[in-house]
Amino acid sequence: EIVAQLSSIMAPGALTGQRVMITAGPTHEAIDPVRYIANRSSGKMGYALAEAALAAGAEVILVSGPVHLTAPTACQTISVESASEMLEQVMLNIRQTDIFIGCAAVADFRPAVIEGQKIKKQGRQQMTLELEATTDIIATVSASEYRPKLVVGFAAETELLAEHADSKRQQKGLDIIAGNHVGKGIGFASEENALEVFWSGGGQRLPRQHKRLLADALMTLIIERYHAKDTTKTDRPKAG
Amino acid sequence: EIVAQLSSIMAPGALTGQRVMITAGPTHEAIDPVRYIANRSSGKMGYALAEAALAAGAEVILVSGPVHLTAPTACQTISVESASEMLEQVMLNIRQTDIFIGCAAVADFRPAVIEGQKIKKQGRQQMTLELEATTDIIATVSASEYRPKLVVGFAAETELLAEHADSKRQQKGLDIIAGNHVGKGIGFASEENALEVFWSGGGQRLPRQHKRLLADALMTLIIERYHAKDTTKTDRPKAG
Repeated sequence: EIVAQLSSIMAPGALTGQRVMITAGPTHEAIDPVRYIANRSSGKMGYALAEAALAAGAEVILVSGPVHLTAPTACQTISVESASEMLEQVMLNIRQTDIFIGCAAVADFRPAVIEGQKIKKQGRQQMTLELEATTDIIATVSASEYRPKLVVGFAAETELLAEHADSKRQQKGLDIIAGNHVGKGIGFASEENALEVFWSGGGQRLPRQHKRLLADALMTLIIERYHAKDTTKTDRPKAG
Repeated sequence: EIVAQLSSIMAPGALTGQRVMITAGPTHEAIDPVRYIANRSSGKMGYALAEAALAAGAEVILVSGPVHLTAPTACQTISVESASEMLEQVMLNIRQTDIFIGCAAVADFRPAVIEGQKIKKQGRQQMTLELEATTDIIATVSASEYRPKLVVGFAAETELLAEHADSKRQQKGLDIIAGNHVGKGIGFASEENALEVFWSGGGQRLPRQHKRLLADALMTLIIERYHAKDTTKTDRPKAG
C-alpha cells in the first residue's frame, strides 16, 4: 500500500557498500528472576530505519532489545535484553560500521544488585531499589577509536525538546540527533511520530507521519549528511 | 491440531450459567512517562484458562494486563495496565462472580511517586527508587463480602515451591493455589509449564505440558472443587 510505495522515494544505491548499525527497542534491566525495569519503546522506529537503510542499499546490522516485531530478513539481527548486552554487541561490531544510528531507548539506570531469587514481599510496605548508571552506548561509540563516520542519536523528551536534544548532541559528540516528544499520544507505542533533527549548523523539522515514512525522511537526511561529511573525524569529543 | 482436540476433554456444560473472572498477564507500574517496572508474565496461562472456562460453558470476564495475545472473542476482556487499575476492575465485577482465578503476575511494589516528566540522568551515577506495596488483589477478593464461592490463586516461585505456595494459600484464604517454578526455562514466556496444585486437605501435581493442556487439567480440578464445595463460605479469612 501507500507506505510500501512511498518507501521507493529512497535513492536506491545511495548507501551501496556502506555498513549501517542500528539499535532498536527498549532494554530490560533485571531486578530479580521475574521483575525488571523497562521503557515504552516499541522498536518500530528502529525497525523502520533498518528497512530504509536496506532500501538505500546498505548492509544493516540491527541490535534489538526485546520487541514484538519481525526484523527484515535482509539484515543481520542480534537480539539482546539489557543495556550491557547491547553495549557489548555494538562494540563487537563497531569497527566495520560506517553509520551508527542509536535508536534504542536504552535504560539510563539498572538495579545495582540483581537478586538471584524472587524478592519476597514479607509484609513490607516499603522497599528501596538502589540503581546505578548504565554505560552510555552512543557516547561510547562516538568516543571510540573506531568511531563510525556518522553517528546519529535520538532524544525522547517530555519537555524542552530542542534545547535538551541539541545539548545532548553536542555533549555526546554526535553528528545528528533526532528529537521527539513523548507522552502526548505520539512517540512510544504509536504508529506515528514527528522529529526535530539537529546537526552542527543546521536542523530540520520532520512533521508527524507514519514511522515508516518518517524513517525514510530521516534516512534521506542521514544520507545527505553522510556524503557531505569530510572523512576527517572532527566530531570526536575530547578525551576525558 | 492436538491442542484443539484435547481441549474437548473438558466436560461441556460443567460451568454453564456460572460466571468466572480471570486476571492475566503482568502489570506495569510507571516510574515516569517512559519508564516502568514490569515482570515476565506473558499472559498465556491466564488466556488459556479463559479458553478452558469458555469450553466448560462459563461466562468469562478476563481482566488483562498489557500482553501481546488475542483474547477469545467469547469472553468480556477488560484491559488494564497497573495493579491499582486491575484491582479496581476486579472489584467492580466481583459481586457477580462465582469463580475467581487470579492468574495475573501483579506487581507487589510500585514506585511511591510517579514523576510527571522523564527523569533526567544529569550525570548521576546512582539513584534510589522508593517503592510502596500494592494492594493484594486476591487477598482483597477473598476477604470481600462478595467473595466468590471459589477463589483460585497462583504462586510463581523460584525456590521452595510447595512450602511457599501452600502457605500463601492459607494466608490469603484461597480455596486452591497453583504453584509453578519460574526461572528454569519454564514458566514465564514459555509455551509449557508444570503446576503443583494445593487445596485444603489435598493436592495434585500437573506435569509439564503445553499451557493450553495444562489449563484444561487445572480447570478440571477447579470444576471438581467448585461442585464439591459447600456454599457455606468457610474459607473466608478472619477479619483484621
